[in-house]
Amino acid sequence: MSSKNSKANRRNFLKLCGLTSLPLMVPSLGLGSSILNEGQKFNPDVLDDDNQLINFVTDGLMFSPQERIQKLMEIDKLHPIKTDFYGNGGAISELEQAFAKLTGKEKAIFVPTGTMANQLAIKLLNKDNTKVIVPENSHIFRDEADAAQAVHNKRLIPVGKNKPHFNLQDLKDTIAYYNSGEVFKSGLGTIVIEHPVRRADGASVPLETIKSISNYCRENGYKLHLDGARIHIAAAYTKVSISEYASYFDTVYISLYKYLNASGGAILAGDAEIIDKMNHQIKIYGGTTYQNWDEAAMALHYLKGIEDRWQKATLVAKQIISSLNKLKEVTISDIDNHTNIYNLVLDESIDARKLAQTLSREYNILLRNPNSKGIVKFSINESILRKDTNYIINAWKKSIKHSRK
Amino acid sequence: MSSKNSKANRRNFLKLCGLTSLPLMVPSLGLGSSILNEGQKFNPDVLDDDNQLINFVTDGLMFSPQERIQKLMEIDKLHPIKTDFYGNGGAISELEQAFAKLTGKEKAIFVPTGTMANQLAIKLLNKDNTKVIVPENSHIFRDEADAAQAVHNKRLIPVGKNKPHFNLQDLKDTIAYYNSGEVFKSGLGTIVIEHPVRRADGASVPLETIKSISNYCRENGYKLHLDGARIHIAAAYTKVSISEYASYFDTVYISLYKYLNASGGAILAGDAEIIDKMNHQIKIYGGTTYQNWDEAAMALHYLKGIEDRWQKATLVAKQIISSLNKLKEVTISDIDNHTNIYNLVLDESIDARKLAQTLSREYNILLRNPNSKGIVKFSINESILRKDTNYIINAWKKSIKHSRK
Amino acid sequence: MSSKNSKANRRNFLKLCGLTSLPLMVPSLGLGSSILNEGQKFNPDVLDDDNQLINFVTDGLMFSPQERIQKLMEIDKLHPIKTDFYGNGGAISELEQAFAKLTGKEKAIFVPTGTMANQLAIKLLNKDNTKVIVPENSHIFRDEADAAQAVHNKRLIPVGKNKPHFNLQDLKDTIAYYNSGEVFKSGLGTIVIEHPVRRADGASVPLETIKSISNYCRENGYKLHLDGARIHIAAAYTKVSISEYASYFDTVYISLYKYLNASGGAILAGDAEIIDKMNHQIKIYGGTTYQNWDEAAMALHYLKGIEDRWQKATLVAKQIISSLNKLKEVTISDIDNHTNIYNLVLDESIDARKLAQTLSREYNILLRNPNSKGIVKFSINESILRKDTNYIINAWKKSIKHSRK
Amino acid sequence: MSSKNSKANRRNFLKLCGLTSLPLMVPSLGLGSSILNEGQKFNPDVLDDDNQLINFVTDGLMFSPQERIQKLMEIDKLHPIKTDFYGNGGAISELEQAFAKLTGKEKAIFVPTGTMANQLAIKLLNKDNTKVIVPENSHIFRDEADAAQAVHNKRLIPVGKNKPHFNLQDLKDTIAYYNSGEVFKSGLGTIVIEHPVRRADGASVPLETIKSISNYCRENGYKLHLDGARIHIAAAYTKVSISEYASYFDTVYISLYKYLNASGGAILAGDAEIIDKMNHQIKIYGGTTYQNWDEAAMALHYLKGIEDRWQKATLVAKQIISSLNKLKEVTISDIDNHTNIYNLVLDESIDARKLAQTLSREYNILLRNPNSKGIVKFSINESILRKDTNYIINAWKKSIKHSRK
Repeated sequence: MSSKNSKANRRNFLKLCGLTSLPLMVPSLGLGSSILNEGQKFNPDVLDDDNQLINFVTDGLMFSPQERIQKLMEIDKLHPIKTDFYGNGGAISELEQAFAKLTGKEKAIFVPTGTMANQLAIKLLNKDNTKVIVPENSHIFRDEADAAQAVHNKRLIPVGKNKPHFNLQDLKDTIAYYNSGEVFKSGLGTIVIEHPVRRADGASVPLETIKSISNYCRENGYKLHLDGARIHIAAAYTKVSISEYASYFDTVYISLYKYLNASGGAILAGDAEIIDKMNHQIKIYGGTTYQNWDEAAMALHYLKGIEDRWQKATLVAKQIISSLNKLKEVTISDIDNHTNIYNLVLDESIDARKLAQTLSREYNILLRNPNSKGIVKFSINESILRKDTNYIINAWKKSIKHSRK
Repeated sequence: MSSKNSKANRRNFLKLCGLTSLPLMVPSLGLGSSILNEGQKFNPDVLDDDNQLINFVTDGLMFSPQERIQKLMEIDKLHPIKTDFYGNGGAISELEQAFAKLTGKEKAIFVPTGTMANQLAIKLLNKDNTKVIVPENSHIFRDEADAAQAVHNKRLIPVGKNKPHFNLQDLKDTIAYYNSGEVFKSGLGTIVIEHPVRRADGASVPLETIKSISNYCRENGYKLHLDGARIHIAAAYTKVSISEYASYFDTVYISLYKYLNASGGAILAGDAEIIDKMNHQIKIYGGTTYQNWDEAAMALHYLKGIEDRWQKATLVAKQIISSLNKLKEVTISDIDNHTNIYNLVLDESIDARKLAQTLSREYNILLRNPNSKGIVKFSINESILRKDTNYIINAWKKSIKHSRK
Repeated sequence: MSSKNSKANRRNFLKLCGLTSLPLMVPSLGLGSSILNEGQKFNPDVLDDDNQLINFVTDGLMFSPQERIQKLMEIDKLHPIKTDFYGNGGAISELEQAFAKLTGKEKAIFVPTGTMANQLAIKLLNKDNTKVIVPENSHIFRDEADAAQAVHNKRLIPVGKNKPHFNLQDLKDTIAYYNSGEVFKSGLGTIVIEHPVRRADGASVPLETIKSISNYCRENGYKLHLDGARIHIAAAYTKVSISEYASYFDTVYISLYKYLNASGGAILAGDAEIIDKMNHQIKIYGGTTYQNWDEAAMALHYLKGIEDRWQKATLVAKQIISSLNKLKEVTISDIDNHTNIYNLVLDESIDARKLAQTLSREYNILLRNPNSKGIVKFSINESILRKDTNYIINAWKKSIKHSRK
Repeated sequence: MSSKNSKANRRNFLKLCGLTSLPLMVPSLGLGSSILNEGQKFNPDVLDDDNQLINFVTDGLMFSPQERIQKLMEIDKLHPIKTDFYGNGGAISELEQAFAKLTGKEKAIFVPTGTMANQLAIKLLNKDNTKVIVPENSHIFRDEADAAQAVHNKRLIPVGKNKPHFNLQDLKDTIAYYNSGEVFKSGLGTIVIEHPVRRADGASVPLETIKSISNYCRENGYKLHLDGARIHIAAAYTKVSISEYASYFDTVYISLYKYLNASGGAILAGDAEIIDKMNHQIKIYGGTTYQNWDEAAMALHYLKGIEDRWQKATLVAKQIISSLNKLKEVTISDIDNHTNIYNLVLDESIDARKLAQTLSREYNILLRNPNSKGIVKFSINESILRKDTNYIINAWKKSIKHSRK
């Protein structure tokens, strides 16, 4: 595909997505209102041949269908893609082996969605028990439409309200509360940790907290599940390996479309005893899809070298943030235990809306709208490696100038 | 049956129950330790021909099997008992009609347990919705072994932790929290109120609170269920009729073995649309028992004249409490919105254990042990009408004297 | 209670039950139309002081409430009844121990209904498997309102259509059919046998069939459950002990209100591993009823000496049948593998309706209506021991004479 | 992508798929043994630039990953593909609108699998009822791993054993059997027809049968669901339009990866009342996948002009079959109500294995192995339009000659 086609496709993409698909992204970002604004239309004329979007908005590269098809073609040239058959064989088997290795678990299995991976993990881990303790602000408690209760007959007990995550004492207090106050007990079988925490701007759970909870669970016979949808970004920032994180848990779910840029899909890794039961479970809940090599090939591609790329990305991000913080109009600050999300606040002299529009129209750089408190959630991802760092910094400087109220 | 047999049976009962069955009652009272003590053995020699137990322990008359058989025989003489057939016909139909009238609802149905009545009510009211809001300290949330989640696919959302009951603002805040924070919503269909509240020592929910919640539910299309297991006692103390209470709710559950002295069973009353579905539901959950006229006959018997008896019992209780409070060794105080349970505290000079033993051995009067805070939960029930009030007061006075440390 | 009261109560019972409650019995007998007719009104004047009903209709003694209360009083005099507390302790514990001994199983537990006993047995035995093989004409397949599918997520696979029971080959063929034809298999965990078979007029399953199926199940890792609601009658006729029958099964359900005359209830016996899980299961399905000593005391009473009484009853039945078969108007014939039900056909000269009316009015003997094929299902039970055998035979002879068309 | 790449990719595909992936296809074809044999390796040298596989094996074109990527690129050029977002917007919306129009239903929705589409359709149609009547040899009864029972609390009642499909009388008999024999009824709400019938070699259900069952269901208040996974092929052969077929049903499921060549996915069409509930259902069962425009774009592409292409394909198939039937070594015969599958039997002189190998190696034509009865299931699909008809006929003639035993 020539670069001309690429530009044409980009134009199409922009036309198609600019106004219609972006507002649709809101749910995935867990916000109640539009995160991008109407004015963020692209100016196709600024696109050079290698034009690629830089976004400070989400987890990954935000491929258009055209870019995705192109990328699959490139991947196939490097390493011919083999088909799977209802999730068996081919690229899916490669993917499962790669994730078993990455997590250090006996087995890993492809699951079509993270919701299904989380739900089936707690179903299988919990056995005959009803109670599962989960973080109050976790995906499994607040973003899976009550699947645990409505479909899987589980009672989720939330812990850690108004905190990024719960700690061992919170957990013990909760268990004591239920053990002491209920006469006819149903069992507690499983504890869930989400790490990093999407609803806390990607904050990571400190390793010591994870270890203490893990030890407690093992001593008391509770199973521990990791919702590690975004574990790659935690590993990149904390320098703790995914296999070490995984070692503290019985099962680990990792998303394929956050930092691995697949079009969907999830991995669940754990002991063979659990993972071997998954195929049947996926089937009965209607998740046995025909061909999934597309997700597998993309995820495998981006899995290779991810540590190196993120080491580079975190350095580049530091540079960008440091430079922007030198501008009097911009303040970017850390959140506690942050990974790749920062709080960006603009000086009162700047029109945030105009800034976002300028960045997108002139430089193909996407920025979120400020939230109700005036904070722009500023997300780092691999797209900042697509251009020279100075290009990005200059784009900001110039756009700031053009965005005075 | 002669009074001699009666006394012999009483002796048997005392022998049988004194040490063995009473500790078993602990779970029903929701306490973690024995509420009665070993020393509370009865002295059969004090029993006169009309001997009957007076208890400050529980909701009802605490019939032994022998007393229950005897009572059924008396009831049958007054009004011959007709058999039911798997819950249809006979005394059960009479009972259902009586409760439809009492509650002012279109229909009422016999259900073998309160847990089943509560669970099926919320199942049927909630239709396709998953969420049900319940009081944090309710039977449905903490004493039904997670049946709602484990069996009926409901997500119970508790409200009002550390409070006897929630009010309208608590309810609104909770609904707002779930509406604003969850993207993939499952519906909320039903709200539950427990009134009076067993885990709050029988405290009643103020009528204004009930009315405001009821109005809000009707305006917003939520169904409202009353766990009125002990509604008779609330009505006796608040002077609000059961039919008025029931009018604020879509369904009402009332226990048959609390204040109505049956050996088990429950009533669920509501619109025909709901109640007509219950027979099938009771069957599939395994609750269609063969003959239930025993429960029906007892409950019908004690339902007649219950208001008059309780008017008398509350007056007698006032007299007893007033007299006991004149003793320097005894302080009986109200709890907020109390019904029939009071806090009794003994002076340091008195050995609570010895007092309970003396009352039971010498006067056939049962008293609970103090809880960990030194408070004896002091429950009024119809058994105080079994003897002359002065007999009871004098029994206390004499027992206090014999119970110094 | 004097005999005068007894007669008065009988009169009441007859008045009450004659027309209203008997048609209600139809469902329990599994028939689509009335089994008794309007004319079967009793003539209270024929009742002597010891008057008791003789019935050729059902499994047991058909106690009225009055008779049941009286009988409990008698039982209590022989052996004082101890209360249970939510199914724990007292008479219920005695009952559970008696049934553990009777069946030779580690443990037995009281369950409020046979439907709940059957359903929870297959739920617990089947573990993660979905498929349960059941007799096509069993209670569990056709009389439990699809509880297995609607509540317990089980797939019941019926075997043996148009046969009283299936045999080993039928079972093997069915398993082969499902194993060969389904790609995505869900597991088969449990097989159910009903013995004797209510929908086949109480026919028993031959011991050799039971043994061969039991061996096959053990070799192949399937669990085997016995719906032995009426196992007492099978044991009485086949002379195989209940403990031998039970030895071929993992769990055994026995009804308390068929041949043991309780007002309801069931027993489930099996390994401690299964039975220890039942208390929690019973609770979550809403079956934890407050007091159950009534059922326990009655069942325990009738359990003692049941073999002797039935040995006598089968001899008396033989005498009656032999005598009646000498009448040219009556033909009573065996069904294959019969237990206590026979086919009775009347000569064309006899009006079946008139006969039933005469027997009931003049002799307090109950007989079913003929079914659509002109066959009267003729059931033997212990009530034939209530009178002298000649009294019964003469009653028939005289009633036949008065029942010509 | 040049034709050179195409050939290289083909080579890769052949190498990758030849031995490894094809045996994996067996489950999807519902057979217990390999349908293709090891010798069916391709000879890449015979491939011309336009080389494309002709298969007499399955429903569609059997795209390799490489061909699929290439095809998506072509489709995107014709009509730029718009992304969806968790199944909303973009190509998915276009697809849903196209299927609503095609079926004449109010709405259609994308569902990730046919199993999920079937299961959720019967769940929503059946409401509070438990029973669903299904064809004995249907996908929903035998190929969905008991999802209906294990997950959705439905009792599937199979009808039409040993027949390609049931008719109205079979249905009435079944309903009568359950209505007459069960006392505690659970409701029957839904009937399912599969058309055409995969387990009967794609036989279609006669229109008159469908109409009579549809009328009966409407008269009696039953809902009717069509498992029309392969409805396109039925329409092509019977000349009845999909919208006419759909008009007889309440909901219709159509596969996207049978005749429409998508990599997965399904459509469920029906009244807005049902379809509007699907989004939530899909979410709670874990089926809300991130991006699905790939399936949508492919299906939309192949949907356009499908009638014309199949009109042509059926004519070409007739020509091929007629020519092959003139060979004494080949007999191709119709099955009753056949659509695109025929029975092919080879003369004893021919080695079927050798024939299949020759056809694949020399001519890139795939053929199934004979089944245990010596019959080769001979499937027609659009791939026969990829080459000149004479090329195919000659390939057969020459291969036959080289395949003598």
